[in-house]
Amino acid sequence: MSYRPKVVILGAGFAGIWAAKKLNNKPVDVLVIDRNNFHTFLPLLYQVAAAEIEIEQIAYPVRQMFRKSKNVGFIKAEVQRVVPKENLVITDVGAIPYDFLIIALGSQTAYFGVPGAQEFAFPLKAIPHAIELRNHILSMFEKASFEIEPKSREPMLNFVIVGGGPTGVEFAASLQELIDGPLKKDFKELRPWTPQVHLIEANPKILKGYPEKQRYYAMRELKKKGIVLHTGVSVTEVTPSEVKLSDGSKIRTETVVWAAGIQGPETLGDWNLPLNSRKQILVDETLKAVGYDNIFAVGDIASIQDQFVPQVAPAAIQMGSLAASNILNSLKGKPQRKFKYKDKGSMTILGRNKAIVRTKHLKFKGFIAWLSWLFLHLMKLVGYRNRAMVLLNWAWSYIFYERAARIVLPLHSDEKPVADKTVNVQMAKPL
Amino acid sequence: MSYRPKVVILGAGFAGIWAAKKLNNKPVDVLVIDRNNFHTFLPLLYQVAAAEIEIEQIAYPVRQMFRKSKNVGFIKAEVQRVVPKENLVITDVGAIPYDFLIIALGSQTAYFGVPGAQEFAFPLKAIPHAIELRNHILSMFEKASFEIEPKSREPMLNFVIVGGGPTGVEFAASLQELIDGPLKKDFKELRPWTPQVHLIEANPKILKGYPEKQRYYAMRELKKKGIVLHTGVSVTEVTPSEVKLSDGSKIRTETVVWAAGIQGPETLGDWNLPLNSRKQILVDETLKAVGYDNIFAVGDIASIQDQFVPQVAPAAIQMGSLAASNILNSLKGKPQRKFKYKDKGSMTILGRNKAIVRTKHLKFKGFIAWLSWLFLHLMKLVGYRNRAMVLLNWAWSYIFYERAARIVLPLHSDEKPVADKTVNVQMAKPL
Repeated sequence: MSYRPKVVILGAGFAGIWAAKKLNNKPVDVLVIDRNNFHTFLPLLYQVAAAEIEIEQIAYPVRQMFRKSKNVGFIKAEVQRVVPKENLVITDVGAIPYDFLIIALGSQTAYFGVPGAQEFAFPLKAIPHAIELRNHILSMFEKASFEIEPKSREPMLNFVIVGGGPTGVEFAASLQELIDGPLKKDFKELRPWTPQVHLIEANPKILKGYPEKQRYYAMRELKKKGIVLHTGVSVTEVTPSEVKLSDGSKIRTETVVWAAGIQGPETLGDWNLPLNSRKQILVDETLKAVGYDNIFAVGDIASIQDQFVPQVAPAAIQMGSLAASNILNSLKGKPQRKFKYKDKGSMTILGRNKAIVRTKHLKFKGFIAWLSWLFLHLMKLVGYRNRAMVLLNWAWSYIFYERAARIVLPLHSDEKPVADKTVNVQMAKPL
Repeated sequence: MSYRPKVVILGAGFAGIWAAKKLNNKPVDVLVIDRNNFHTFLPLLYQVAAAEIEIEQIAYPVRQMFRKSKNVGFIKAEVQRVVPKENLVITDVGAIPYDFLIIALGSQTAYFGVPGAQEFAFPLKAIPHAIELRNHILSMFEKASFEIEPKSREPMLNFVIVGGGPTGVEFAASLQELIDGPLKKDFKELRPWTPQVHLIEANPKILKGYPEKQRYYAMRELKKKGIVLHTGVSVTEVTPSEVKLSDGSKIRTETVVWAAGIQGPETLGDWNLPLNSRKQILVDETLKAVGYDNIFAVGDIASIQDQFVPQVAPAAIQMGSLAASNILNSLKGKPQRKFKYKDKGSMTILGRNKAIVRTKHLKFKGFIAWLSWLFLHLMKLVGYRNRAMVLLNWAWSYIFYERAARIVLPLHSDEKPVADKTVNVQMAKPL
């Protein structure tokens, strides 16, 4: 058998998986590496945090995707660094050589140096974040139920979301419905009912990139739900019990969700690759890391010189796919193709019955937009079983105004009790 | 309003919840305390460990059960100890006074002093155990996939289950089907396929309490599946890489599941309550802790003098219910009722299409028994949504021979890489 070039793909997100799909059954040996044994459908991650759907429903085993493939393998390993001059990837299970490398490791939350943000705010970029956030939110209600004094409950029942982009907006709407629906019924001892969701956006309006009318519509809908919008202000500090804003105001809260920005992974620092100021890998139009011939970077981790590409799943898929094509073109001696983002539009859900949709030629909102959002996300979700499960969950929530996954997941079998103190616990519910 | 006696129930398992149900809308104030905010349906816990169903599907929020109740409250707290002479429960959130106490804290795994067992074997008594075990089993396959040498793979691919009772048997059958079905398709690089499930039982036959014929049938069915039965031998030592048996033999394994016995929780030691040798609370026939008038113990944590009660859900439900009745009888000045276990029979599933069922008057096995097991467990599961979800999962697994929840759940957002070492990784799948 003649030598088959080895392509190593780092990351099993949208960019990495679609690159591997493109290389499936082509004359190369492909190895996908991810720290998790599954692909995560990130567009629905916030629904895990809001107790709408179950963890396993947005996860799909990578090995199952490539079961029938003869040339795509997978290993579960943590990538530690890349050594370009040796064509080597160093992982926690060993060193792996490559001929071509596709880096698709995604992004992490950017806190822009805001004091306390990294320490006290919750990111929402991966499954463990969603579990931690869900556990924390539900625990805040349990904790508040021990407090007789309404004033002391305030920081436990204020929920602050930083960032008025799609993730922040969708999570805010979903959280508000969780609070006003099932939690209000569960925590009768917390009446009068004071929980409050706050959404903070530095721009004067939320949802940058949408037409003006839709942005106003979205703001109106969020306000109607009872969400407090703080626009045109930014966060200057996060502490364990409050958030300070640029207008001098403060919100007492123990829950800050940071959906305000992304950057390249911290670990990229010593890989000898060209980075931009946001720690993303600089690539040329063919998606090769600048200065390298056999290293591609795709998805959120990449930044194309002189081209703006939004950090969304369709862009990651298009990039992964093109990088794979360019590797095949190299091997055939064909010219490299240049990346050009095809904007198929975008959509944001605003809770029950409401959404906005924008495409090149169409703009619509309301119920039809909402149905479109549900349908498209269901169709894009990987795995038929996951689709059936998510659909059942959505239908259940819609019909009964319930959220099924309202459990504080214990992550360790040995739970350590917190400090011993004496409080008064209400015995029965107030009528 | 006249004084209403306060009943505190420790634990939201079968015994605790059914006690609370009995006291619902009666002239007492009830507080249920559990470390988790949900009730766990333990009979299906092993299916979470075997990647058959999702975590949230066997959990049901306690608050939701008592939403409409006017006298049953709940707090999520860790019980630290009971101080009987002060009628006080000490929890991590404070001290809680009671007039009547129902202790329903369940049991923990008993390792019978076998060296290494507590340290290296996996218990299977609570949701975090199931997650840890599922993660571990799937990780063993991932780890084995780095090993070129079949001999080194052996301990990673031997799975030893200790205890031939219902839990051990049901888990063994389910694990064997997980391995022979989806995992065999996922890990083509591990061929020739050598994973092996072992079941160890100290008695000469498994499933004590069933008729002889059914016990033989079960053993035959497990063997047919490919499970290696080790009967009449006990475990003398567990190490990180092997299990030693009383007949001098050894099994090389990194996975030992301990389903061999239970005892009362360790923490009971300093509560001043009468305990038996297995650290369970000794109760009289009215289910009161011996020597106390206002403290009841029910479910797995209780041991009735001169009466054997099996540690199963129906017994816990019957005990919880009777303790609640006796409290109401005390308040009305009526005599106390004595507990008498009503054995409604038992059933054990042996994987696909096979089960055994035993009632007072009937014994049957095979497909009809299997359908009965599925139907009964589905009906007993708390929550209509959970039932629909589990049914969908079962149907999916049955039709497609798949297991949906094959994900290694990351429990922390910051994963620490293990020590740096260099291994050879196979690039592509062997054809």
